[in-house]
Amino acid sequence: MSYKVYLSGEIHTDWRQQIIQGCESRGLDISFSSAVTVHEASDAAGDGLGAEDKQFWRDHKSAKVNAIRISNAIKNCDMAIVRFGDKYRQWNAAFDAGFCAALGKPYITLHDDCLIHALKEVDGAAQAWATTPEQVVEILEYLVSDS
Amino acid sequence: MSYKVYLSGEIHTDWRQQIIQGCESRGLDISFSSAVTVHEASDAAGDGLGAEDKQFWRDHKSAKVNAIRISNAIKNCDMAIVRFGDKYRQWNAAFDAGFCAALGKPYITLHDDCLIHALKEVDGAAQAWATTPEQVVEILEYLVSDS
Amino acid sequence: MSYKVYLSGEIHTDWRQQIIQGCESRGLDISFSSAVTVHEASDAAGDGLGAEDKQFWRDHKSAKVNAIRISNAIKNCDMAIVRFGDKYRQWNAAFDAGFCAALGKPYITLHDDCLIHALKEVDGAAQAWATTPEQVVEILEYLVSDS
Amino acid sequence: MSYKVYLSGEIHTDWRQQIIQGCESRGLDISFSSAVTVHEASDAAGDGLGAEDKQFWRDHKSAKVNAIRISNAIKNCDMAIVRFGDKYRQWNAAFDAGFCAALGKPYITLHDDCLIHALKEVDGAAQAWATTPEQVVEILEYLVSDS
Amino acid sequence: MSYKVYLSGEIHTDWRQQIIQGCESRGLDISFSSAVTVHEASDAAGDGLGAEDKQFWRDHKSAKVNAIRISNAIKNCDMAIVRFGDKYRQWNAAFDAGFCAALGKPYITLHDDCLIHALKEVDGAAQAWATTPEQVVEILEYLVSDS
Amino acid sequence: MSYKVYLSGEIHTDWRQQIIQGCESRGLDISFSSAVTVHEASDAAGDGLGAEDKQFWRDHKSAKVNAIRISNAIKNCDMAIVRFGDKYRQWNAAFDAGFCAALGKPYITLHDDCLIHALKEVDGAAQAWATTPEQVVEILEYLVSDS
Amino acid sequence: MSYKVYLSGEIHTDWRQQIIQGCESRGLDISFSSAVTVHEASDAAGDGLGAEDKQFWRDHKSAKVNAIRISNAIKNCDMAIVRFGDKYRQWNAAFDAGFCAALGKPYITLHDDCLIHALKEVDGAAQAWATTPEQVVEILEYLVSDS
Amino acid sequence: MSYKVYLSGEIHTDWRQQIIQGCESRGLDISFSSAVTVHEASDAAGDGLGAEDKQFWRDHKSAKVNAIRISNAIKNCDMAIVRFGDKYRQWNAAFDAGFCAALGKPYITLHDDCLIHALKEVDGAAQAWATTPEQVVEILEYLVSDS
Repeated sequence: MSYKVYLSGEIHTDWRQQIIQGCESRGLDISFSSAVTVHEASDAAGDGLGAEDKQFWRDHKSAKVNAIRISNAIKNCDMAIVRFGDKYRQWNAAFDAGFCAALGKPYITLHDDCLIHALKEVDGAAQAWATTPEQVVEILEYLVSDS
Repeated sequence: MSYKVYLSGEIHTDWRQQIIQGCESRGLDISFSSAVTVHEASDAAGDGLGAEDKQFWRDHKSAKVNAIRISNAIKNCDMAIVRFGDKYRQWNAAFDAGFCAALGKPYITLHDDCLIHALKEVDGAAQAWATTPEQVVEILEYLVSDS
Repeated sequence: MSYKVYLSGEIHTDWRQQIIQGCESRGLDISFSSAVTVHEASDAAGDGLGAEDKQFWRDHKSAKVNAIRISNAIKNCDMAIVRFGDKYRQWNAAFDAGFCAALGKPYITLHDDCLIHALKEVDGAAQAWATTPEQVVEILEYLVSDS
Repeated sequence: MSYKVYLSGEIHTDWRQQIIQGCESRGLDISFSSAVTVHEASDAAGDGLGAEDKQFWRDHKSAKVNAIRISNAIKNCDMAIVRFGDKYRQWNAAFDAGFCAALGKPYITLHDDCLIHALKEVDGAAQAWATTPEQVVEILEYLVSDS
Repeated sequence: MSYKVYLSGEIHTDWRQQIIQGCESRGLDISFSSAVTVHEASDAAGDGLGAEDKQFWRDHKSAKVNAIRISNAIKNCDMAIVRFGDKYRQWNAAFDAGFCAALGKPYITLHDDCLIHALKEVDGAAQAWATTPEQVVEILEYLVSDS
Repeated sequence: MSYKVYLSGEIHTDWRQQIIQGCESRGLDISFSSAVTVHEASDAAGDGLGAEDKQFWRDHKSAKVNAIRISNAIKNCDMAIVRFGDKYRQWNAAFDAGFCAALGKPYITLHDDCLIHALKEVDGAAQAWATTPEQVVEILEYLVSDS
Repeated sequence: MSYKVYLSGEIHTDWRQQIIQGCESRGLDISFSSAVTVHEASDAAGDGLGAEDKQFWRDHKSAKVNAIRISNAIKNCDMAIVRFGDKYRQWNAAFDAGFCAALGKPYITLHDDCLIHALKEVDGAAQAWATTPEQVVEILEYLVSDS
Repeated sequence: MSYKVYLSGEIHTDWRQQIIQGCESRGLDISFSSAVTVHEASDAAGDGLGAEDKQFWRDHKSAKVNAIRISNAIKNCDMAIVRFGDKYRQWNAAFDAGFCAALGKPYITLHDDCLIHALKEVDGAAQAWATTPEQVVEILEYLVSDS
């Protein structure tokens, strides 16, 4: 069985690479998609359409360009992994989780114990909560296994 | 024209009351819905179903009971107002915004300037960004006006 | 707030009456729907359309007449309560739960501890698991409360 | 013509193998999907995410991991075969049937005569009722035939 | 319980009146909708938009005006009754049945024995087949009964 | 029968009033919705959310506020009338028509002969083409008639 | 561009072959699907599931097996051709057309002039009306052309 | 990542070729679809189905044949580019934009500064506004990039 997995959230640690490499090393037939994760490139996604004086509109233009990629990736995926790190507010990750929930796309959250209470609504609509990328890889291996 | 408006997010200031009273004082035909906003009651929503030793499962049970109310309210609304305050992570508000976006429910964000960059994805899918409850009331008055 | 609640499952105990009367005694604005719960009438739902020699077709005709009522009720409800008793196989209750899950209709299961393992898939897609009608009434009161 | 068929239900007899081998021996272009059918592995699907003291939560975690696989398989299939054996309550099979019905996915039930009355609602929403795997293979051969 | 029932098909006998009066005499809370059933008015529905030389375009304009009413009525109904008489080809009735089937709207066919083979696909997607308006009234009474 | 009709397009002539008054004078049970049709108010819909230096963003903010009202009105209507006048490009009217078409909402266009070729795609997805408000009123009277 | 075309209706003339061969001879990248068109095989589709005494149930079982194939084919197609011949009532063809219409699948009707009035509702929801298979081939060639 | 992009609107300049060649020269895995853009062929799309005396019906037949291709292309695309030139009313482009908006298909508009006010509703529902084909190519390159 093959799976398409969307990876949402934190961009400051290498959790994506850990999951992708973990799946590759086990030979799983899984393809991954993601928002553009290079911070500067993502923030500048709309800059080519003309400069803006106000921060709001610069951010707005980039966010809407990025949304093309993100919404397509979520609509096309079989499931998502939504990662919350210790820093920053990461509202985009929670937004993606809500988007998945409304579309009926199953997702797994990936975060530490200390965020349990703050993420209870996001976890409540998730299919599972993992604390390490390795746990996610194991779940994925199970999901695509032959029997 | 009558409107059903879902109010999502921050529960530590009186922004809901300001919007509701502002609409009432102008005689607008708008009904409002919301999650249960009494913090302790919300956290205890699932307690009647049996005690839990682990924080995760207590939160989980309450979050899933609350989700019945929230998802019904969003599915039944014409639009939502999503408020982000200065404190806490408020991932549930971002989750609601993503849920609205996926369902095609229009929403307006309500937050200060200092959150512009952190909320760019949430604002990018919104129909408007307001900074005060009074602005929201004015938009609502406009939306339900006769012509 | 008003709610429409579909009551699915066991017809041999008075759990429906307990929930309905519990809500009435608390003055909740909740309307209930249900399949026809008179066993003989339900089994004979299609008899007026002509007699059948084979049990399969008699059952089939009645089941499809009943399905008109059930599918309409589920599509129109805000949420469902799905009850599993100790006797009989009650596959119709599990079928209703799956129907709710696919439509995104939230439901609460109502069953004893001894059925936990057998019902794990049905509980896994539920928003809550209750063991008494009184617990269900409390959740409903919470869900339709003003704040 | 190629078909994707989801096989739901009983895991204690070899009905899946009979159908798969029957289709292979006739050279039919049909791919099959299924939940994980190794009982112990299925019950332990969520164990890697942390141990649980209570049976309910252990089952819950595993059931929700399994639901990722099952819901994806049903959403991607052309049709399902839903098997009910003589033992156990098999509520998951009835749940899958309801899920199919709500999504408009056609399904065929596979069970003995003695279950006719108990399964009348599940059969009522099915496209056909078969009593042997061989009958199912014949229907599948017919469905994917050139004319 | 109240029901909205769409009445489709034959316009040359009084089956609609029999059903409506039968329901009224039993005090059922059922509202009925229908295409315009005055043959000349229906054929002339588009005439006010300008005369046409070709029969095809005159029919086309009227059919598309009528389709506004019919598609709205079907989308808003709880169920439909689809009547096939002995005369004429009544392709519009079969079209309505297919429209209902694709939307998941339950319908009951109403026709004589002699049409069984010709209507097998239409009956195959129906929830029931009746031969008299009185049978339909009985089913409706059952469907909206209190328990 | 009652109908909800959305009136889209030209704001420089009194076609809306003619249709509304025509329906009132015939006693039809039809409610009408519309975008805000006061040109200056519509252009200023977002001004209360803060001034903009660039024309694009002022227009953008107002258009997105107006879109809340318009998309809700279209989603809630039974049908739409889309009017194209002789002046201006009226791309918003064509946009509304496309929006209706994708949602399966029937609409009638209202325009002069001289626009036939330019509007062929918009007319192609319409249920009818009218040239006068009086024709529209006649169609509406027909659609909501008792039989 | 490649297209998937469902061919519905009459099985007593070779219109399917004419269209398929016409497309092949022009080298068009079009795949065709269809119900089983061997009359006896189609009528006997359910016979393997057990004999029936009543004509209604024999037809019912076969019709529902055939419906698996037909509904899948329509849901997967880009468009349909719906053919009405001179003989028989062909209600299944009109049913398929209604099914397409409700799903938003475009279809072209194929029939003689003499059926214009009887088919006005079916033609009213069609994208085109053709009188010969050759016309259909020309339209298909146009639809899949490079520009 | 691969993308399917629908190109809508103006047919009198070479903006399509610029975008397609720009993507090819950068080696992007993007496939493009479009309406038939040869003006005479498009206007004559329905001519093979029989001559018409009235301009309206000739246009109507061609528009509805073209709509088969256009609606399929939009439903199958990941996103659209909607181009408005300086000449003509181009209502079909605005219609396509509304169609995309209702389906949740993201689109980018491509037009000059002088059309900002006239296109504010169309731009309001767009994910971005570009003024040159080169800008569109840059956005597409960004969207399909590996990270």
